Amino acid sequence: MSEQEGKSKFQRFIYIVIFGADTKLGKLFDIGLFIAILISVVVVMLESVSTISEKYHGVLYTIEWIITILFTLEYILRIWASEHKKKYIFSFFGLIDFFSILPTYLELFVSGAAAFAILRAVRLLRIFRVLKLVQFIGEASNLLRSLKASMNKITVFLSYVLISCTIIGATMYVIEGADSGFTSIPRSVYWAVVTLTTVGYGDISPVTPLGQFLAMILMILGYGVIAVPTGLVTADIVRQSQNQDARKLLRTCKGCATEIINPEAQYCHRCGKSLSDKK
Amino acid sequence: MSEQEGKSKFQRFIYIVIFGADTKLGKLFDIGLFIAILISVVVVMLESVSTISEKYHGVLYTIEWIITILFTLEYILRIWASEHKKKYIFSFFGLIDFFSILPTYLELFVSGAAAFAILRAVRLLRIFRVLKLVQFIGEASNLLRSLKASMNKITVFLSYVLISCTIIGATMYVIEGADSGFTSIPRSVYWAVVTLTTVGYGDISPVTPLGQFLAMILMILGYGVIAVPTGLVTADIVRQSQNQDARKLLRTCKGCATEIINPEAQYCHRCGKSLSDKK
Amino acid sequence: MSEQEGKSKFQRFIYIVIFGADTKLGKLFDIGLFIAILISVVVVMLESVSTISEKYHGVLYTIEWIITILFTLEYILRIWASEHKKKYIFSFFGLIDFFSILPTYLELFVSGAAAFAILRAVRLLRIFRVLKLVQFIGEASNLLRSLKASMNKITVFLSYVLISCTIIGATMYVIEGADSGFTSIPRSVYWAVVTLTTVGYGDISPVTPLGQFLAMILMILGYGVIAVPTGLVTADIVRQSQNQDARKLLRTCKGCATEIINPEAQYCHRCGKSLSDKK
Amino acid sequence: MSEQEGKSKFQRFIYIVIFGADTKLGKLFDIGLFIAILISVVVVMLESVSTISEKYHGVLYTIEWIITILFTLEYILRIWASEHKKKYIFSFFGLIDFFSILPTYLELFVSGAAAFAILRAVRLLRIFRVLKLVQFIGEASNLLRSLKASMNKITVFLSYVLISCTIIGATMYVIEGADSGFTSIPRSVYWAVVTLTTVGYGDISPVTPLGQFLAMILMILGYGVIAVPTGLVTADIVRQSQNQDARKLLRTCKGCATEIINPEAQYCHRCGKSLSDKK
Repeated sequence: MSEQEGKSKFQRFIYIVIFGADTKLGKLFDIGLFIAILISVVVVMLESVSTISEKYHGVLYTIEWIITILFTLEYILRIWASEHKKKYIFSFFGLIDFFSILPTYLELFVSGAAAFAILRAVRLLRIFRVLKLVQFIGEASNLLRSLKASMNKITVFLSYVLISCTIIGATMYVIEGADSGFTSIPRSVYWAVVTLTTVGYGDISPVTPLGQFLAMILMILGYGVIAVPTGLVTADIVRQSQNQDARKLLRTCKGCATEIINPEAQYCHRCGKSLSDKK
Repeated sequence: MSEQEGKSKFQRFIYIVIFGADTKLGKLFDIGLFIAILISVVVVMLESVSTISEKYHGVLYTIEWIITILFTLEYILRIWASEHKKKYIFSFFGLIDFFSILPTYLELFVSGAAAFAILRAVRLLRIFRVLKLVQFIGEASNLLRSLKASMNKITVFLSYVLISCTIIGATMYVIEGADSGFTSIPRSVYWAVVTLTTVGYGDISPVTPLGQFLAMILMILGYGVIAVPTGLVTADIVRQSQNQDARKLLRTCKGCATEIINPEAQYCHRCGKSLSDKK
Repeated sequence: MSEQEGKSKFQRFIYIVIFGADTKLGKLFDIGLFIAILISVVVVMLESVSTISEKYHGVLYTIEWIITILFTLEYILRIWASEHKKKYIFSFFGLIDFFSILPTYLELFVSGAAAFAILRAVRLLRIFRVLKLVQFIGEASNLLRSLKASMNKITVFLSYVLISCTIIGATMYVIEGADSGFTSIPRSVYWAVVTLTTVGYGDISPVTPLGQFLAMILMILGYGVIAVPTGLVTADIVRQSQNQDARKLLRTCKGCATEIINPEAQYCHRCGKSLSDKK
Repeated sequence: MSEQEGKSKFQRFIYIVIFGADTKLGKLFDIGLFIAILISVVVVMLESVSTISEKYHGVLYTIEWIITILFTLEYILRIWASEHKKKYIFSFFGLIDFFSILPTYLELFVSGAAAFAILRAVRLLRIFRVLKLVQFIGEASNLLRSLKASMNKITVFLSYVLISCTIIGATMYVIEGADSGFTSIPRSVYWAVVTLTTVGYGDISPVTPLGQFLAMILMILGYGVIAVPTGLVTADIVRQSQNQDARKLLRTCKGCATEIINPEAQYCHRCGKSLSDKK
């Protein structure tokens, strides 16, 4: 039983180190993990560059295996240490952890260059693990919250954009035709999106005067309309930050628990108790 | 007469199902319509891709006819169910509904590839019918309202942009000349718009040092000036959302109907009646 | 003397019609002027398109002369009607008015295609006269005011951008070299501006991995930094519009001329006089 | 000792002239320095243009040496005049001052075109000295402060952007393959950054329908997501400017030093003293 208890204590200690970032060891673990992920991502990227992968194949292969074994150990530890094992395994990060070690083992059994390339690219999913660490930074949740708050509006806005691009793309398909590169409606819609978002590759561009005129209108509209989602998101963030500011100024009366909005008040306007902390 | 009444009841029922989205059947109808529109749009797009339309011509043709017949039935039902038939037929969506079924029938009588392509593209107008469904989402009206509120300012801004582009385009036409692709003033204005809106296809780009210098100034100006419409729209949206917030905090005295702005007030500042709801 | 007086009255009448936009005739005159300017701009543009100017040379030539004579008459009337003639002649719009009729007359004496092209382009300055009409729209002054208010900040921001582009351009010149199109530092700075402003023509683009890496950093920085001028301008506009709102709510006590900020107040907080208008 | 004192006085005078901008001489010095820097930067740029450097080599060489000698004198004066010599020498601007005169002297001993080009480019670091002068403009610090305040958020945002670009780049590498120009994962990530930031060179662009579809999603996402950093920065700036406004309205009671927030108050709400300045 004491063995059991000891195991349990050790388990909790491992849990705090691996999953938390409040202890010194936990922070060290996170930094080590961060470096391992970065190295692993760089290795995957370099392997895809033919000149490098031919020259340093041995080195990259070795590093890849060392990191995969480290990640496998970490994965096993995470399962062992967590109380709700199933919940961890099937959580977003649990699946990422699993799929980021799987490809290296699979490569032992797989043959064929195409399948190889895909497996290697899959290993890049490891980069999502960085998000696990980013979570500890307070700003991240703020950012996500303001994105979520405006998600509805942005979705509606983007559906308008998509509808406009479809109609304009189809019009350009009729006006310009296959000779200018507008070979089909999907391709023309692709052009319209490339133009409206101001990316402008130039792989397809209008040639006829009428097409160029229509393109000009599309561009100027895009230039004027981009302001709308920006305005919506900004207004949301301004409101949020003002609410936070207002909340910081709020004091609560110790006598009657009323919220005191007036920052000049010295006595509660409800029960008359003094608001100063010194007394 | 009872038959008349029965018809009238049935008519109103159909009206609620087709035009509304509050009943269960109405929602189901809208979802079905949405799917039909999407399928129809995809079919039109795929037909324009030569490799696909050659292979699956029969399938696409069949789906197109099924959807057209469904849309025709819906169109007839809409006319029959609506009380002010003329008003519906000549409304924006009435015309869209009509023109989205017309091309398929016309194709039976029309010959010639060009006319064919145009007719097929016209069928894409069906995508506007999605807007009918988007209307039910509350955010859409918010978005449109904030766009409309800033429309005046954006128009003035865009006319400044157009005037600048004309002058700069003409200058580039003089500086660069036909050898660099600036073959005419309209084409140079097209280039200026492509540059100022940061689309930058690269189909025309300055070659002479003086031209590149002018282009740099244009780009940097465009970079600094884009902030203005964004600022105008954002300010409008911020003001709107603040007004909404302020309106939410407002309470109305039940005694004298005065608007109570001070959120701390417990008694009406005009008639002295208590503002708490509990009492 | 009565003749003198009659002339003076007629002069003032002409002045109001030409320079103002408050009377019916004044508005009609402005609309006519607007149409004449647009026609004139379109004619200049079309003349530069070789296929059109060859075919319709006679027509364009005739329209150009009719409009030039009309503009000349207008110019003479403006000088005659204005009290401070010198002030008008040397004002911005006076000079524009002069230089927009000059080229057509000069073309009679000038020979040589290049000088011709320049003279024709100069006629496009007429488009600035549209601004004279835009002035009457209230929004324009608002827009200009908010641009001016942020001009200082935007200038400082743009000088930072230019300094960054110079340093980055020089670095790319060293890294990429003449083979990738980075033939000189000015050209590399041009590339840096094209990239940072997200125009991205693609006429010059990095080829070496190191150059592409640096370009990536430049792009992501540009993506993050564009937010700053937008933020500055927006903050200015938000502040302006809030001040305007606040000013609308302000009432002034009729007894002691104190500004009443509290919108709920019924009596002046200084002299006790009732603020209601009804009494 | 009087000599020592005289030297000390002269030293302080030089210090005020060189480092300050409050005296007339100090301003003159700054303007002269600004012009010298600009000339020097232009000379470096022109030297890199082969056609110009061949023609005017002698002139550029002479100007370069005159400016370098002036800068050397200034550098020596700066060291001599500053009290904490080491602090100045190893400060950011001290190092810039040193490295902006070094290359010209080094060129006397160095041979080889590549090393030459680099040395010449290094001289462009002089442009950073302009920042020393920009510092005196009040707006600059405002701009930097608002950038710093949002730095955290922007960093988190940009790391999200980078992670997305990596994943999307790898996916495109698998989908498009080497034939479309996506020859390696780093190159594909480069493409993803070029696209998401809406630069869009067009040196690499998707060719397969699936790749174009993915690119469209990436572009539309980028279009919607750019709003977030703008919103964050704007909200920060709005808050800052509102705080500044609020601080301007604040008055302090002369009797008890309480901050008076209510702009309508005539008597201190704490000690009852009159707030009017006239009395």
